[in-house]
Amino acid sequence: MSITVKALQKTGPDQPFRVATLERRDPRPDDVVIDIKAAGICHSDIHTIRNEWGEAHFPLTVGHEIAGVVEAVGEEVTDWAVGDRVGVGCLVDSCGTCVECRAGQEQNCLSGNVGTYNAPDVDGSITQGGYAQKVVVNERFVCRIPDQLDFDVAAPLLCAGITTYAPLARWGAAEPKDGSPKKVAVLGLGGLGHMGVQIAAAMGAEVTVLSRSRKKEQLAIDLGAQQMLATTEDGFFADHRGEFDLILNTISADIPVDQYLRLLAPRGVLAVVGLPPEQQGLGFGSLIGGGKVLAGSNIGGIAETQEMLDFCAEHGIAAQIETIGIEEADAAYERVVAGEVFFRAVIDTSTFEGAEVA
Amino acid sequence: MSITVKALQKTGPDQPFRVATLERRDPRPDDVVIDIKAAGICHSDIHTIRNEWGEAHFPLTVGHEIAGVVEAVGEEVTDWAVGDRVGVGCLVDSCGTCVECRAGQEQNCLSGNVGTYNAPDVDGSITQGGYAQKVVVNERFVCRIPDQLDFDVAAPLLCAGITTYAPLARWGAAEPKDGSPKKVAVLGLGGLGHMGVQIAAAMGAEVTVLSRSRKKEQLAIDLGAQQMLATTEDGFFADHRGEFDLILNTISADIPVDQYLRLLAPRGVLAVVGLPPEQQGLGFGSLIGGGKVLAGSNIGGIAETQEMLDFCAEHGIAAQIETIGIEEADAAYERVVAGEVFFRAVIDTSTFEGAEVA
Repeated sequence: MSITVKALQKTGPDQPFRVATLERRDPRPDDVVIDIKAAGICHSDIHTIRNEWGEAHFPLTVGHEIAGVVEAVGEEVTDWAVGDRVGVGCLVDSCGTCVECRAGQEQNCLSGNVGTYNAPDVDGSITQGGYAQKVVVNERFVCRIPDQLDFDVAAPLLCAGITTYAPLARWGAAEPKDGSPKKVAVLGLGGLGHMGVQIAAAMGAEVTVLSRSRKKEQLAIDLGAQQMLATTEDGFFADHRGEFDLILNTISADIPVDQYLRLLAPRGVLAVVGLPPEQQGLGFGSLIGGGKVLAGSNIGGIAETQEMLDFCAEHGIAAQIETIGIEEADAAYERVVAGEVFFRAVIDTSTFEGAEVA
Repeated sequence: MSITVKALQKTGPDQPFRVATLERRDPRPDDVVIDIKAAGICHSDIHTIRNEWGEAHFPLTVGHEIAGVVEAVGEEVTDWAVGDRVGVGCLVDSCGTCVECRAGQEQNCLSGNVGTYNAPDVDGSITQGGYAQKVVVNERFVCRIPDQLDFDVAAPLLCAGITTYAPLARWGAAEPKDGSPKKVAVLGLGGLGHMGVQIAAAMGAEVTVLSRSRKKEQLAIDLGAQQMLATTEDGFFADHRGEFDLILNTISADIPVDQYLRLLAPRGVLAVVGLPPEQQGLGFGSLIGGGKVLAGSNIGGIAETQEMLDFCAEHGIAAQIETIGIEEADAAYERVVAGEVFFRAVIDTSTFEGAEVA
């Protein structure tokens, strides 16, 4: 037995989306069945399904920014009840026993966690993501969506939100320095960056947005930034030397790492969540002088994801989105790649209703 | 007026040492005059005086691992008295008012601190280091040498000790992980590495020494390491993947950064104090997966240097040294560069007595 649902699927990296049926497992005793209301389109979805990050297992449904309502629970589930507003992010399982899982760092599970899509599940099947009507997930990987957050603006928090919240929290964006707000720069103003700006500002930091141009300056200010600076302007790196306590790099292109490290004050941190395809050049002297830090960050654990959702609700933060129907998914992908979506496209899964299965 | 002392001096990068006279300033109200007993030879001395790190100001006396006895104090000095056993490291002045100085991070002084040698002093003169009979230093840059530590084995702590202590302390070598000692690897077993091994072991970490060969294995064990591993052995990087919580890189040669990052457990830290001359290649993915950290560290502040001295005295840690006379300095430089000194050459400054000035 299983649960049959409609889903957006591709049969190959160059194929358009089609509506297909997907079999979700019947809930195990510790599973939650979620009626999906909204699914965000993350750039990772595009990289994966276009085979840009290694081989995708087709036919494939992606999507790891999932918001919806609990429709049924397994017999041993006590924390979740039918009707609960919940979300699922990038992870759907992990060993639960290793030192990382016990520390709430399921994203680092030493046995290898299970990604929400295109990953081998514990039963050997390949996981299928959230561009679908329903999903069945282990209860430990479900987060509560506070009532203040609508499903569509909450969905992107499950990936873009936690990806930026975790390094901002770890590296002290909320902690004043010498009695003054930390100076945080967010490099790149896309799906990740626009969350980072809002979260850093809500943490009390003084936020600067860095980008190649100032095109999105008003958007940056509206999101809570004090200013926007164009990194391509003459003298930019010299003029802003030593200025920031923390730089959050959300872009996936090459960056002049040494120059960015020089923008940091002593003991400053360059936190990277964007993954350029090539190796970057780095002089250790840029780190040694001033005792600086270059730190990677990869989403966050489940407890911290819940903390982030609660923080966002408390501070009135949500993703800025445009809602699309399932028939617009192919076009949305093109527009995401072209940088034309401000800042997240979210699929309204009610548009599956009445759709013909291919 | 000034204080005339004998000092080891070079008149050019390729010149041998000569005994010359040096004029030390008469003590200002906040100065301490130190009768130097021992001065360690740091590899930085060699890089500097051979013009390998930019232009040296000749004639020059180097040396920033200084141990001795207070001989006189300025009229406003209250913390130091004649006869006190004291040391001076890499810094002799800083603004004292910037956010870094106020945080006890004088090594990061925003106005630029004054290095112990080859640096423009506040009066415009070029500072002269510790291969000399005496030095005159602002009281804020003097540390107390605990009675348990002899001058010769204490001197190298002022640079090699604090350089390794600070990153080990900052990155939690002393803090158990999940109830077990942290696994710390020290890369390179020279002047810095041999201090790092002792300090990390005294902090309670389980210490591994990494080097190109296992030649110094017994030395490593004697210093407190659990094991020594040769990085050149087949399969080294694969066999030890994810093993260490903290790697302290003390070598100044190129390293395969991504491979070392893979030796780290999730949330692990690669702390670098050795400065290779070229840019290193780094894939951001090596940092993002597992949320890893690449951190630079540059000596430490004065308060932390005192903390380190007290820690070493409490734990019976000192530099392992060979004592040399001033006439052996040229030969010692050659042997340091050849890696033949285990682990620090220290000049016994009593050998200035009777030496003819060139």
